[in-house]
Amino acid sequence: MSETLRLLSWRYAAKKMDATQVVPEEKVERILEAIRLSASSSGLQPYQVLVITDAETKAKIRAHAWNQSQVTDASHLLVFAAWDHYSAERINLMFDLVNEQRGIRNEGWEAYRQKLLNFYPNRTPEENFQHAARQAYIGLGSALIAAAEEGVDSTPMEGFEPEVVDEILGLKALGLRSVLLLPLGYRATEGDWLVNLQKVRRSTADFVIRR
Amino acid sequence: MSETLRLLSWRYAAKKMDATQVVPEEKVERILEAIRLSASSSGLQPYQVLVITDAETKAKIRAHAWNQSQVTDASHLLVFAAWDHYSAERINLMFDLVNEQRGIRNEGWEAYRQKLLNFYPNRTPEENFQHAARQAYIGLGSALIAAAEEGVDSTPMEGFEPEVVDEILGLKALGLRSVLLLPLGYRATEGDWLVNLQKVRRSTADFVIRR
Repeated sequence: MSETLRLLSWRYAAKKMDATQVVPEEKVERILEAIRLSASSSGLQPYQVLVITDAETKAKIRAHAWNQSQVTDASHLLVFAAWDHYSAERINLMFDLVNEQRGIRNEGWEAYRQKLLNFYPNRTPEENFQHAARQAYIGLGSALIAAAEEGVDSTPMEGFEPEVVDEILGLKALGLRSVLLLPLGYRATEGDWLVNLQKVRRSTADFVIRR
Repeated sequence: MSETLRLLSWRYAAKKMDATQVVPEEKVERILEAIRLSASSSGLQPYQVLVITDAETKAKIRAHAWNQSQVTDASHLLVFAAWDHYSAERINLMFDLVNEQRGIRNEGWEAYRQKLLNFYPNRTPEENFQHAARQAYIGLGSALIAAAEEGVDSTPMEGFEPEVVDEILGLKALGLRSVLLLPLGYRATEGDWLVNLQKVRRSTADFVIRR
């Protein structure tokens, strides 16, 4: 079994976390770094990650996240927040950064910039947001594996009121909309109904089609 | 540096693949297994993965994927195809499988089944498809790390005509819609303009917000 498969097999969506345990900062940093290094469409990284450690803020969010206890019991709550639109400014920022870091200016790359500038800003903000939100899920995929490697439990959540969470975190002013919550912490084995149950997936025969 | 970070740093979206090299089947199987084990909303796994090795099929798809050479140069082309709707049948299938595999029937779990049955089938197919498509991106996140662990190059692609690819693969009859392409192969270092260029990401200070 490969290391990636071992980590994916180990992890599960912890239903109860131990509120007395704190994930060390260096582990959180490596999990964030895995998200930051993740692939995204045209390399635009059209989302940001918020790290919430403030107890009051976590409590406010929990009240609008079906009262799921992991939101407050986790020492660190990650919020994936996607761009509310692909503006020309945001696209240029990323292409300029690439030129600056690589120290070269490439004709094909500049043509690609123009292509995106002619495309994204003319779409509706909602279309662009939906596309940006998908990219955040790639980062989530990396985060779940990275957390497992650190021995840290993580519970991906879509069940929350995004407009309220945006309000709590002041995301509108940042041009962001919340998409996913990911509490990071340690499983509280005793209170977790899921911890000892088998991970169930459809069989490979039902999941994979060969052509 | 953690293993996950090492793998994410190693990988990049190969722009040219070596058409003479074939990814061994056991590597492809471990990459597929990583996708299969990935998290998804309510554990529904609302997508399937097609593995295309037939040269003619790959050529047909390439013609509707901006003629990107990796589609045919890759030995294996993965197509992530999401459910076109969350039907009661599909939801029940997954909940039944969970009961069967765990060998228990849990009241809370059955209440959750009813909640989903009351929710998803009443939404529009388009809303449900968009949600299913997002889940496929979590699987993509796993696949990119799993491929890197195998030393296999992979190039995620959204740039294709999904309706035509659906037609080529007969996905409509399966209740699926194509979302992502992922060619698996080996980089052709000489023809790849990207291979020696630095991976560029926004700085942690620009990507992470702490509260």
